[in-house]
Amino acid sequence: MRIAAAQIDPVVGAFDANLKLIREAYQKACSQKARILITPEMGICGYPPHDLLLRPEMVERCEAAVESLLKMTQGKECALIVGHVAATTGEYGRAVQNVVTVIEKGRRVFKQAKRLLPTHDVFDEARYFEPETESQVWDCDGKKIILAICEDLWAKDPALGRKIYRNDPVESYKKLKPDLLIAIAASPYEWGKREKREKLHSDTARELGCPLIYINQYGATDEILFDGGSFAIDRSGKLAGRFKLFEAAFGVLNFDASVSFESIEGREDQAPEEIEVLARALIVGTREYFARTGFKSAVLGLSGGIDSALVAVLAAQALGSSRVLGIAMPSQYSSPHSLEDAEILAKKLGIKFEVRPIKFIFSTFSREIATQRGELAPIALENLQSRLRGTILMTLSNNDGSLVLTTGNKSEIATGYCTLYGDMAGAIAPIGDLYKTQVYELARYVNQKWGSVIPERSLTRAPTAELRPNQTDQDTLPPYDALDALLKDYLELSMSLTELRKKHGDNVKGSPHWVDETIRRVELNEYKRRQSVPAFKVSSKAFGIGRRIPIAKVWDQ
Amino acid sequence: MRIAAAQIDPVVGAFDANLKLIREAYQKACSQKARILITPEMGICGYPPHDLLLRPEMVERCEAAVESLLKMTQGKECALIVGHVAATTGEYGRAVQNVVTVIEKGRRVFKQAKRLLPTHDVFDEARYFEPETESQVWDCDGKKIILAICEDLWAKDPALGRKIYRNDPVESYKKLKPDLLIAIAASPYEWGKREKREKLHSDTARELGCPLIYINQYGATDEILFDGGSFAIDRSGKLAGRFKLFEAAFGVLNFDASVSFESIEGREDQAPEEIEVLARALIVGTREYFARTGFKSAVLGLSGGIDSALVAVLAAQALGSSRVLGIAMPSQYSSPHSLEDAEILAKKLGIKFEVRPIKFIFSTFSREIATQRGELAPIALENLQSRLRGTILMTLSNNDGSLVLTTGNKSEIATGYCTLYGDMAGAIAPIGDLYKTQVYELARYVNQKWGSVIPERSLTRAPTAELRPNQTDQDTLPPYDALDALLKDYLELSMSLTELRKKHGDNVKGSPHWVDETIRRVELNEYKRRQSVPAFKVSSKAFGIGRRIPIAKVWDQ
Repeated sequence: MRIAAAQIDPVVGAFDANLKLIREAYQKACSQKARILITPEMGICGYPPHDLLLRPEMVERCEAAVESLLKMTQGKECALIVGHVAATTGEYGRAVQNVVTVIEKGRRVFKQAKRLLPTHDVFDEARYFEPETESQVWDCDGKKIILAICEDLWAKDPALGRKIYRNDPVESYKKLKPDLLIAIAASPYEWGKREKREKLHSDTARELGCPLIYINQYGATDEILFDGGSFAIDRSGKLAGRFKLFEAAFGVLNFDASVSFESIEGREDQAPEEIEVLARALIVGTREYFARTGFKSAVLGLSGGIDSALVAVLAAQALGSSRVLGIAMPSQYSSPHSLEDAEILAKKLGIKFEVRPIKFIFSTFSREIATQRGELAPIALENLQSRLRGTILMTLSNNDGSLVLTTGNKSEIATGYCTLYGDMAGAIAPIGDLYKTQVYELARYVNQKWGSVIPERSLTRAPTAELRPNQTDQDTLPPYDALDALLKDYLELSMSLTELRKKHGDNVKGSPHWVDETIRRVELNEYKRRQSVPAFKVSSKAFGIGRRIPIAKVWDQ
Repeated sequence: MRIAAAQIDPVVGAFDANLKLIREAYQKACSQKARILITPEMGICGYPPHDLLLRPEMVERCEAAVESLLKMTQGKECALIVGHVAATTGEYGRAVQNVVTVIEKGRRVFKQAKRLLPTHDVFDEARYFEPETESQVWDCDGKKIILAICEDLWAKDPALGRKIYRNDPVESYKKLKPDLLIAIAASPYEWGKREKREKLHSDTARELGCPLIYINQYGATDEILFDGGSFAIDRSGKLAGRFKLFEAAFGVLNFDASVSFESIEGREDQAPEEIEVLARALIVGTREYFARTGFKSAVLGLSGGIDSALVAVLAAQALGSSRVLGIAMPSQYSSPHSLEDAEILAKKLGIKFEVRPIKFIFSTFSREIATQRGELAPIALENLQSRLRGTILMTLSNNDGSLVLTTGNKSEIATGYCTLYGDMAGAIAPIGDLYKTQVYELARYVNQKWGSVIPERSLTRAPTAELRPNQTDQDTLPPYDALDALLKDYLELSMSLTELRKKHGDNVKGSPHWVDETIRRVELNEYKRRQSVPAFKVSSKAFGIGRRIPIAKVWDQ
């Protein structure tokens, strides 16, 4: 039996565009005489639609789309497996379900709704969907095929911490003795996810003793990045082939007792290094954000520092150099080499470059505002510089019809070492979920890959916000190595304060309470993050919709 | 049997402060010889802690608090009913439960975990809690008492649209034949909620044929306002007494076959008008936000318009006039009476008042930025004025150690008729969930209540942003009456576009496509709302955590 699979990038709510992707893949599958075509979870409506799932149009439009696909399959041999949203049957439970439907020769021949509804981190599926309690087998030419949807196969994920699901679908599959397990997914990327995902599904295939075909989407919805990386695994748990990460791909495989690929357009046999996947993730995320919001060009501030340099490189890769504008906005506190490094970077990248000194605006503004107060407080003056820069970028973006890229990193955003409406301004934060130490790592990688575009001095100078004379980040923050290790354990591993003190307490010399002070700082700065721009999620716990923390609280343990 | 009940305002994570409130209430209950004291849902840890529930400290601190309450009750006759978070017993399911514990003479004598976990709108309880499947009866001096937690009694809420819960706890209570039903809650306010809540619980008491005591918290966590308004209902469904809305209260009642109040400190026998409750909601919300974040004073822009005037009145009521600073920031497009009206308002309210004209800053800034571009585009110039004002307010707040109040309303925020980092800047938006027509209604009410503090001209002039010559809101937006009615049906009733076209299509003369255009506008402006400040939720569907919509989507049906 020949089975085709399409790794596509559906857009939330873009029914027509998504249908087009599915139709194109179906034609290709038919021309290659496939018996089945597999497409990703909720491929008809895109993922995640969030509260658009509560709109009456969602089910109506999905229904209309399925109807049109029914027509498409008339008289064809190829069965189509599609994911969509459908009304729950019966009077109890949530109104809709996340389903996979098999369409064959103009008829719906099989349907399975999702059983496990991820309701953690960025996922809110229990908010919308009624879960299915049982699995059925689809009989296809005498082969027993089970269809699973993403989380259905993740009950054993060690990251869940405990057995949060009382019924693991995989256990129930054993009784059904399937010949093949097909999983459709909209599974987000995070650092290390590919390896983890392949391992988990390999274990499942081996446990069930049947091959497994896993088809993920690629692309991005706001801060959530989908890495694709679809694959097939044979009954022994061995990888039979992998689709490219973060690209469109299409494969045809032969399924008998086992599976083997006949062809893959967009093949990735050798697993890429994680740092390479991260670079692709941020580039594809940026590209898709612009494409989906209809913007063509970007503007960003270039400080001469490492963060803005890295974002410029990623933006140039995502949009093309000619669509990126870098603005240097030096002040009286900027060192001369900051402007120089910004200009060198822009030239090497071939992006547009302009200079807007803020010295005169800053002095005018602070004088006009200070009325009746004498000199403004240092914190007000520092933030003012940052806000004037944010306003310059926003004004230019409004004028030029471009989007502002925010250049902040996770270490800054965590500790509130950033200014609301200043350096936090923008439409999307490409590196907002990268710790400062990761920023350096990725910067070195892109320099190695694309010919040292980031000036060496940006990589080696002491990080500074240049908002007062001779300032460096480490006047205010612990050394980044120590800080980032602490933040990771606090945010991603949710370690208790007692554990954190024990593990990290001695890591900053001369500052015995730095762990408590840092955690306090993180929690006090929640108000800034509530208003921050979406940042591509690349870690197991990013700020944004996957981490919900009240502002008005007491949390110093 | 004498039963006492305390309507308190616990703060998320403030274990010590919350324990103090509970201890004080317990002493009072003992001194009044009560047999039982009832306190609200999750009163020990505050509600909603959101992802702090995933921290290991949450259960540890709750456990320590319960231990200390055990000691407090030693040798006393009064049993204490408290709400908190506890570890789930058994290896399956989410790690914690939302529980009510009865503590008596140093022992835990009864425990019931929450059965229905609200996972809609602002609620995410399925993200955190393992539900309980059954209810037990607490035998107290031979009386069969059932303890419910908030949502447990809301399965029949018509607003759910359908029977989303398969098992209604109230149905299972019938078999247990209780003598009394006690519900503890952390139930948010919205317009009309008191009446709806009392009706629903009255129906439940009548259905079960037993009295019901309902104890809610009051206060505010970020945008979520808790209105208190606790009450008791006799077995016939009749209200036996009500605690004040949005205030601390303490009552003692006699329970035999029925219930009757002996005393209530903070009594509200006559149900207040909804507009009065709305005013209290916003005042208490503002007061609590400042108290909980540790700020004492507020600054806001006074445009001479109705929105900022209303926010100034609410802030003066919440914080005291001397702690509110109004800033007028006239430009070349401001009419002279705008400044005049701002000043009159400030004087009448007795708040501080300063003027910062933006004309010079604006001309300097736009000239410096426009380099190489000639004149900036009108949209860039309009937004620039707004952002300069936002920057002035933020700079003054940084300098003075105050918080900026955002003065935008829901009609503006819905349609994106507002500027990111400009008029959207601030810490909290007191009227951000009020449609413009509600702003007028509340403004008239406060004028009636507090002596015409808002100048008549602010109430009667055509609304304008004054960002270009002779501009009015209706150059850009449909008339507010029509707009607000449409927005309400779209946002709160989730009506389909087909229904909306039918009902509202003809409501704006000369603009046959205004419904489609408006909905499109609402959805296109999601990127602004993603970065907007929390706004007190006063409707059934507010922007913010209760409405989750992707930015990168296609949603023009």
